[in-house]
This record gives sequence, structure tokens and C-alpha cells, in this order.
Amino acid sequence: MSDLKGVWAATVTPLTSDLMPDATALARHIEWLGKEGCHGVVLFGTTGEANSFSVSERRRLLEELFEKGVDLSKIMVGTGCSAVPDSVELTQHAVDAGCTGVLLLPPFYYKTVSDDGLVAAISDTLERVGRDNTRALLYHFPRMAGIGYSVPVIHRLKESFGSQLLGIKDSSGDTDNLTHFCREIEDFLVFAGSEALLPYAIREGGVGCISATANVTSRLARAVYDGKKVEADRMIRTRKALEALPFVSTMKHLLADFHKNPALKKVRPPLTELTAAHQGRLEQILDSTGVLPNFVSREK
Amino acid sequence: MSDLKGVWAATVTPLTSDLMPDATALARHIEWLGKEGCHGVVLFGTTGEANSFSVSERRRLLEELFEKGVDLSKIMVGTGCSAVPDSVELTQHAVDAGCTGVLLLPPFYYKTVSDDGLVAAISDTLERVGRDNTRALLYHFPRMAGIGYSVPVIHRLKESFGSQLLGIKDSSGDTDNLTHFCREIEDFLVFAGSEALLPYAIREGGVGCISATANVTSRLARAVYDGKKVEADRMIRTRKALEALPFVSTMKHLLADFHKNPALKKVRPPLTELTAAHQGRLEQILDSTGVLPNFVSREK
Repeated sequence: MSDLKGVWAATVTPLTSDLMPDATALARHIEWLGKEGCHGVVLFGTTGEANSFSVSERRRLLEELFEKGVDLSKIMVGTGCSAVPDSVELTQHAVDAGCTGVLLLPPFYYKTVSDDGLVAAISDTLERVGRDNTRALLYHFPRMAGIGYSVPVIHRLKESFGSQLLGIKDSSGDTDNLTHFCREIEDFLVFAGSEALLPYAIREGGVGCISATANVTSRLARAVYDGKKVEADRMIRTRKALEALPFVSTMKHLLADFHKNPALKKVRPPLTELTAAHQGRLEQILDSTGVLPNFVSREK
Repeated sequence: MSDLKGVWAATVTPLTSDLMPDATALARHIEWLGKEGCHGVVLFGTTGEANSFSVSERRRLLEELFEKGVDLSKIMVGTGCSAVPDSVELTQHAVDAGCTGVLLLPPFYYKTVSDDGLVAAISDTLERVGRDNTRALLYHFPRMAGIGYSVPVIHRLKESFGSQLLGIKDSSGDTDNLTHFCREIEDFLVFAGSEALLPYAIREGGVGCISATANVTSRLARAVYDGKKVEADRMIRTRKALEALPFVSTMKHLLADFHKNPALKKVRPPLTELTAAHQGRLEQILDSTGVLPNFVSREK
């Protein structure tokens, strides 16, 4: 499982003019992220607008990436849905397609879920998937999902599914929580949900980061991961500054600009493209952080 | 549109032993709710565990009810999903099947959605549905969905889709909010989300209630709706007492007991059946409220 570490971008999902997934643009972006230093890419996370697509749209896009020759051994796929049967179908599909792992959001509609209920939902999912070669990370993002994974819940799940449940993406943004996951759970791969916490996570025993903003900061994040500590400040400053903006549409805006493809700005409702005010703020951030360093064309 | 008023139960979804929807038990329960005084029934609301089922499971159950002769002109169906294409598919399906209306949850994954984004999501849904005979209620339950509908958002949606957007179910539990919806939006059918607020809603200009607990209190609620004010206190006391318990599994527990069918207790994860402690609390409530009055068999 040594491949599950390092800098992973939670990729955006480029859309066509009628808001359908654009596999060609996505394959190109994934290739570019690899060149920028990403160890791998997460498809259909929060940044990828996963829950704005139907199950069949999600399956189809993954199949199109495969047909276009994208190396799925460097792709993890978000497959956790509010309905267990959807999570089962998408997980089976991703595992059988050869993706290196899946990320499981908890079922995210009900907000007052007991530990027993959450354990049952994930257990039921993995049992019904019925694939010994499933490699799952939990996806902990309580601010968005409305519920999250606690250490006791993870211990219970690991007891039953240790060989399939390999780790977690912690998008809580809470360093204490990151420490708990790193120190209190044996043999568990902990990814920070942001490159701003990458140095912290590594110090605590984590293995890397899976991040929205790594769509544009991956070169910096990779340098930091590789031990070039001199870049850490700039990386953290850039990430923190970007947190003031809506992150999905900001990533898409930057990539549209960089790849010179205005269609890349498109998002599915309920998200919206950046407002003029947001764009002004973004320009300030680009200036004050010395221009995002992996945007080579802007630096020249 | 005179049928869209009165006491509506947001029905539970009975399950078989392998957690699949049980159309036979549901058809029987719907018939019973009609006899208990419900003007109609909402399928696949929060109480119906809507978001724990796949789109195909939701379609199939509705078709099975139709085949069993359930009168769909007295059924509204929850069709709002986190992904617009799913909402479109389920809305088309319900409208074409002859259901009298649909309830639209807002897309419920993202939590920091702008008014523009929410308006776009609902507009996109209704446009893509493309049925002039769609009769939609908004489903406002911010505590569960994480986002809700504001008066300005509703005004904007009504301007474009007034003939299809007929009203709202307000599950905020907030009387001020209920008043805003009743008074500030012209020609709009406002249902309280609880029978405890039924008398209040009627006074403010609302048309009725759509309620989880109406699965067991509908006889009382109907009496109150029909002007027998003497029952209002007991109805409100019963509802308020039940709010201390997890409402889906409590409804299922009561119905399993009443219909003498233990399988009716089953819920899909992440929900769980009532714990022993909850059951003890429920017994206290049944005693202190003089036994739920529509549970005729218990009263004897």
C-alpha cells in the first residue's frame, strides 16, 4: 500500500457547455496534475462536485477516463453517497475498474446519527461491495457532510474491515483531530485535507494530503513533501488566502485561466461561478502571494 | 388545487427483512392513514428515508404502489436530491405516474450555497422536468438539509415558475418563519411541518400540515383541522413529547406494534431501531399523553 501517500489533488470535474462531465478536459487536467508533482488524483470529492452527479454520470465519466488511457492505479474515487446502494454500486465499479482506492463519505442526509448507525452504514456498504481488494479511505468532512467519523467509530470499523479500511482523509481542518487520527489508530493512513496541514500531518505520522487547492498548488506541495521546507511558508500562505473564496469555483476559475479554456469555469448548480467581487479578491491573493507558483505561464 | 390542503402524513417506508422497500406493507399503511383521516400522504420525505434509497428503488416502489391500486392522486412524492439529474428523473416519474405533487428538498450536500445557486438548482430542475402539469412544493428543512429556502429565493422562483411552484412544507419548527411564508408570499400554499403548528398555521393563512408524527396522530390532527379545537391540546402535547425521540424509528416502532408486524421496525442505516432506553421513554410518553388516541386497539 505504499502508493497511498504523498500529494493528491482532489480534482475539479470540468463540464461542457451543457454542464455534462467533460472527460477530455478532465483527462488532460489529470495528466497535468501528474506533471505538477501529484502522486495521485482523487476523482469525485467535494471539489469534484460528486454529489451533483447521478450514479450513472459518475460511472460513465470513470469509464471514459479509462478509455482515454488515464492510469487508474493513480486514481482514488469518492464513492460515499447518502444511500448505501449507491455507495455499493460506485465502490464496486471503481474497484473493478482498477482504481487504487475509494473515499467513503458517511451517508450525509441525516444529521443526528448514532455511532451504531454510522458503523452499520459503512459495514453494510463494504459487505455488500464484497470485494476483498477494496481499499477504502474514510472521508471526514463534518462541516460539509453534517456528520463525521470519531476515533471509536473507526476502531470498530477497523476491527471488522481492517484489510479494506486503510485510512482517512481528514478535512476537519482541526490539528487536534488530525493528531488523534494519527496517534490513536494503529496502522492507519492519515491524509490531511489541506496542504496547509501537510507539514503538521507528516510530523504527527500522517502520510500526505488530499486537497482541493492542490489543483493549483501541487508543485509547491510536492516540494514541501519532498523535504524542501523553504517553500512551506509560501504554500501555507497561498492555501490560507484561498480559503476566503468558494473553493470549487475558485479552482475552476484559475484552471480556466491557466488552460485558456473559459468553459472550465462552469459549475453545476447549486454552485455558482465566481462573482466579480470574488474575482477581485482572487487577483489580490495572486498578487500578495507572489502569484501561485505552479502557474508557470503567469510567472513569466 | 383545492386538494393540496389538510392533514398529510409523511409516511414511513416499511422494509422487508433484507431492508428492501415493502410495497405491500406500505400500501396497507397508506390505506389505513386514509381511514385515520389523512387528506393525503407524502412518500419519500425525511420520515420515508428517501435519501437512503437509490433512484431506481424509489421509482420501483412508486410503480408497485400504483400496481396495487393506491390512489396516486392523494400522494405527493419527495423528489429533491443532491444531484439535479436525480431530482429531474424522479419528478418526471412522479408527475407522469399521476401523483398529485412533488416536494423539492434543496440540493443538500453543499452548505454555503448562494441565493443565485439555489435559484439556479430549482429552476434547472423544473426546466429539465419540462412538464406544465408539475405541481411542486418546496421542502424547507434547514436543520436537516443544511440549507433552506428564504422568502427572496421563493419570490424569484415564483416569478419564473408560479404555475408549477404551488407552496412549501415548512419544517423549520419556527413560528416566525411560518408567518413570513404565509404573509409575505402571495398565492402560496403553506403547510406546517408538524401538527403541533397546525392551529397556528391555519390562523396565519396556511393550508394544513405535512408531518412525520401524523403517521400515528392523524385522527387527532384531522379532528383539529375540522374545527374540534378541544383536541388541540392533546395533539400538541403528544407531538411535543414524541420530539424527544428519533422520529423515524419511533414511528416505525409504534406502527410495528399497532399493526402487529415486527418487521415494520426495520430502518436502513445510518438510522437505527429504537434502543431499550428509547422504548422506555416512549412507554412513558404513551402513558402521560393518555395513549396515542388513534391507536384504538391500545385504548380498549
